[in-house]
Amino acid sequence: MTRGAGNAAIAHGGGPTAVLNASLAGVIEQWTQLAGKAALYGAWRGIDGLLSDTFVDLSNQDAEALTDLQTSPGSAIGSSRRKLAPADYERILAVLRSRGIRTFFYTGGNGSMGTAMAVERFAREAHYELAVVGIPKTIDNDLHVTDHTPGYASTARFFACAARDLGEDNRALPSPVAVLEVLGRNAGWVTAATALARGAEDDAPHLIYLPERRVSLEQIGADVRAVHARLGFCVVAVCEGQLDESGRPFGAEVDRPDVPQHRLASNLGHTLAKLITGHTGLRARSEKPGLVGRSCAPFAAEIDRREAFECGRAAVRAAFEGRSGVMVALCRDSASPYSSSTFLTPLDTVAGRERLMPLDWIAAAGNDVNSGFLEYVRPLVGDIRHYKRLRR
Amino acid sequence: MTRGAGNAAIAHGGGPTAVLNASLAGVIEQWTQLAGKAALYGAWRGIDGLLSDTFVDLSNQDAEALTDLQTSPGSAIGSSRRKLAPADYERILAVLRSRGIRTFFYTGGNGSMGTAMAVERFAREAHYELAVVGIPKTIDNDLHVTDHTPGYASTARFFACAARDLGEDNRALPSPVAVLEVLGRNAGWVTAATALARGAEDDAPHLIYLPERRVSLEQIGADVRAVHARLGFCVVAVCEGQLDESGRPFGAEVDRPDVPQHRLASNLGHTLAKLITGHTGLRARSEKPGLVGRSCAPFAAEIDRREAFECGRAAVRAAFEGRSGVMVALCRDSASPYSSSTFLTPLDTVAGRERLMPLDWIAAAGNDVNSGFLEYVRPLVGDIRHYKRLRR
Repeated sequence: MTRGAGNAAIAHGGGPTAVLNASLAGVIEQWTQLAGKAALYGAWRGIDGLLSDTFVDLSNQDAEALTDLQTSPGSAIGSSRRKLAPADYERILAVLRSRGIRTFFYTGGNGSMGTAMAVERFAREAHYELAVVGIPKTIDNDLHVTDHTPGYASTARFFACAARDLGEDNRALPSPVAVLEVLGRNAGWVTAATALARGAEDDAPHLIYLPERRVSLEQIGADVRAVHARLGFCVVAVCEGQLDESGRPFGAEVDRPDVPQHRLASNLGHTLAKLITGHTGLRARSEKPGLVGRSCAPFAAEIDRREAFECGRAAVRAAFEGRSGVMVALCRDSASPYSSSTFLTPLDTVAGRERLMPLDWIAAAGNDVNSGFLEYVRPLVGDIRHYKRLRR
Repeated sequence: MTRGAGNAAIAHGGGPTAVLNASLAGVIEQWTQLAGKAALYGAWRGIDGLLSDTFVDLSNQDAEALTDLQTSPGSAIGSSRRKLAPADYERILAVLRSRGIRTFFYTGGNGSMGTAMAVERFAREAHYELAVVGIPKTIDNDLHVTDHTPGYASTARFFACAARDLGEDNRALPSPVAVLEVLGRNAGWVTAATALARGAEDDAPHLIYLPERRVSLEQIGADVRAVHARLGFCVVAVCEGQLDESGRPFGAEVDRPDVPQHRLASNLGHTLAKLITGHTGLRARSEKPGLVGRSCAPFAAEIDRREAFECGRAAVRAAFEGRSGVMVALCRDSASPYSSSTFLTPLDTVAGRERLMPLDWIAAAGNDVNSGFLEYVRPLVGDIRHYKRLRR
């Protein structure tokens, strides 16, 4: 144990997930085992808590609440999207110093890892001994180096089940076209996972569009017409950040040319449904579970929850081994049966970089994924039940 | 057993639910027990199947598929929204006659019960012996006489859990205002049930609007501002059919005055969020699980599933007891522990009539339900887990 004495703090950055609290629970469990009487503070609402010196004492909680944490969504200590201004670093350092904090865990995606890196550098240059360890967390699955990110598989599971059950609904009482808007801005990982909804060839979703591949309304219209001609209905899974062939979010200029594009794109499913109706003459409606799909505890994937917990534990061990400026990452050790382990990667290998879906996991026609992606995602999301059909 | 010999047919009308297949399974199970070798036909896609003589032979299915049916969403034999034209009755009677069908089960809401009544009358006037028994089915819970309808509690459970988890998300990383659009046109039963999401006083949803009480944007804005001032965030559950003070769906004239109101109202959550932002200056976003909430099998409420099954069984027994022109209804025998039983009610007591939320279950301020409604709905939906909070 090469780590110096001192307390620790943990903060979250960015949107919560169904398993972020599981990572927090992992940090608390391992810290309690290794740190003796040293305190563990949870920054209340991320960076904001660090700046305002507002913390939750995580070393002093009821066992019942800690057990509950492992399976509850959202974030028990809040989070923040705040970016650090130059003057903030001094303030944070003063707060850490005043509380004797010598270890800082930061949970988040590539933006948060950039912040962790900056805090580590500032402390080092100020000759303040501080171990900084990142913990991966993002439903977007867009971090480099790690095989996947905690939070991803649970949201993927929600949307795969949503696509499956929307498909059952639509098969029963066909509306010509059903559009399912899926979470994700630049990366289509979650949208791609809706392919797991399929148990049989004609199962939903029939078309999957990913922001890594721009697509024209003409192409979508032709795809939809072809599926509808074959089945009499068509379920489309589309990422909320889907771009048209010129790189604009769908619908950006349809409703209100005077409103900034990013505002209108927040309603992509509805706008695309209207465009499809106008273009094909087939009535389309859209559904947008939105953030419900990010924090829906009943859909948390078992492996995701366990890995989130293990990433939290691994972060504490890294600090106790004297590591700093690193993020915990996941390595897939075996595909079947699935097993994984954690390792450490320097923060600069993940900070500020976005991992998109590899183009070779997207079907040539640009409206589906292929088996390479399915092999990747299936073990993470776990079994999805497929309903049996009556004999006709 | 006073029923004459003959085969039976079952058809569904209207949207599927998470437990409609359970009712079908109940019909199949009881029919198989009582009817000997007489066939049970499922009309493929409701009225359409009756008209086109397209049926699924339900007496001849794998046991495994029948077991699966009890817990699968959608409709294994499809459904239809088709209204009967005068010429259709003759055609239906010819099909029933050709297949020796002397019992007709029709599953649906108040519109479908009107259809069942018309079929029964037409057969009687044509001197064709036909027992017609209705089976209640609607997520809208808007049937008279019956305490509640199969399908309602499962959708209510989905949206209550969605409101709870959206609340956890929003508590973690507050977006000023989150609008959850909930299924329902004229009746607010499902929206009202989101109140079950609350475990503590400051839990989501903070405001609940029901179409039974018109509300002005000014009132919503004042309500939202008050909640936001107290908590720093605000989750609003609103029915997709919510009307403003003049009786128009929210947003009907905001986007496109040239498009019929009912089309625009299909995007109420988004439109209301934009209106709230404009009116209060607080940024609002919206989520719309939509039909995902109607057919989401993992959220099916246990009691709902069991009662749906029992309603199917009771319909078959009614036919074997020589009853016709009736619908199976549910009676709540005991509140705690909850128990229910089925009884029969004449079709004309439920056909074409809509049961809205009683106004005395809506809070005086018009933005919530009261304890009377909670006592009604809680046993149907079942336990909802509430997450523990860390000590601050």
